[in-house]
Amino acid sequence: MVLSDDLSIATRGRGTRDITGAVAEIVARAGVDAGVCTVFVHHTSASLIIGENADPDVQRDLDAFFARLVPDGDRLFVHTAEGPDDMPSHVRSVLTATSLSIPVRRSRLDLGTWQGIFLWEHRHAPHRRRVSVTVVG
Amino acid sequence: MVLSDDLSIATRGRGTRDITGAVAEIVARAGVDAGVCTVFVHHTSASLIIGENADPDVQRDLDAFFARLVPDGDRLFVHTAEGPDDMPSHVRSVLTATSLSIPVRRSRLDLGTWQGIFLWEHRHAPHRRRVSVTVVG
Amino acid sequence: MVLSDDLSIATRGRGTRDITGAVAEIVARAGVDAGVCTVFVHHTSASLIIGENADPDVQRDLDAFFARLVPDGDRLFVHTAEGPDDMPSHVRSVLTATSLSIPVRRSRLDLGTWQGIFLWEHRHAPHRRRVSVTVVG
Repeated sequence: MVLSDDLSIATRGRGTRDITGAVAEIVARAGVDAGVCTVFVHHTSASLIIGENADPDVQRDLDAFFARLVPDGDRLFVHTAEGPDDMPSHVRSVLTATSLSIPVRRSRLDLGTWQGIFLWEHRHAPHRRRVSVTVVG
Repeated sequence: MVLSDDLSIATRGRGTRDITGAVAEIVARAGVDAGVCTVFVHHTSASLIIGENADPDVQRDLDAFFARLVPDGDRLFVHTAEGPDDMPSHVRSVLTATSLSIPVRRSRLDLGTWQGIFLWEHRHAPHRRRVSVTVVG
Repeated sequence: MVLSDDLSIATRGRGTRDITGAVAEIVARAGVDAGVCTVFVHHTSASLIIGENADPDVQRDLDAFFARLVPDGDRLFVHTAEGPDDMPSHVRSVLTATSLSIPVRRSRLDLGTWQGIFLWEHRHAPHRRRVSVTVVG
């Protein structure tokens, strides 16, 4: 049993966006008793994380940490065609995740109480991002 | 064919713990000839890695590296409600993995010779951590 | 429906190598309408990333960034048995990915336009690396 669907997420520029509800809706439709949900982002300058879902400061701090670790405009980088946040976006993507695999139990995402699924836009400009969800059970 | 089960792991505070044997037992029970095992930790201040399983110094060095990269008590962080190791734990979690997908062959985890599955506790205090294992084949 | 196969990749020392075509061939053979492809590297000093596939400078910049972040010969490390690039290779592996899960649609890897699958050798010496591909659908 496999069900797959796509999400099209409009981002507002750099920062995370909670997509747990949208993923959970697709999982509910699959009606799978036990299985795995794979979430995949089809880009290399946006990524996925499972993060703390209660305090917005956590998302703010994550972005602050990554902005310091992978500074925009770093002279180390040769690939700067799309601007000072181009290569840092690829690095941030590689340091986080392009795919997540989440258990499904009784048609529901089996996340921990404080876990949310976030799409992380790394570019400063808003983008439309494709995220696919595949449920196998 | 799907089999899933949970592990409840007591940690002794910050550091890694080899859970390969416990995951392998669940995989053996599934009796799957070919498939994939998904390991998932239901927390945002503990994470999973596949690491070198022979020399304990590797685990010591990993923790030393992350302690320097994401220092406790960093003034950058706003989210400090649970102490100086609160936000660094979330960052360490995001830099490593919440889910792992490992091939299964003839009812066994198909890991490399030097690979082990480790639960990494990022908080200094001991915790009980839920890890779920889902075998699809 | 499960199909699995192995790739044996000869690396030329530190750097990334595009393995998208080799993975796609195995996926095509599986003939799966919808499902997930799991790519797994059976080593702890080489890893996997999904990265930008158009400009070779991106791969060069990724390696430059990681070489600065995790310098060879760092005095922090105790595990130096195999040389100054031994422990840094394990750290790089943990910061990137050992497994990737990629959606499959109509017998094809459903990657984004600019996404490629790369095997990243972290040791300076050439190695032969085992990568397994498992398609479930």
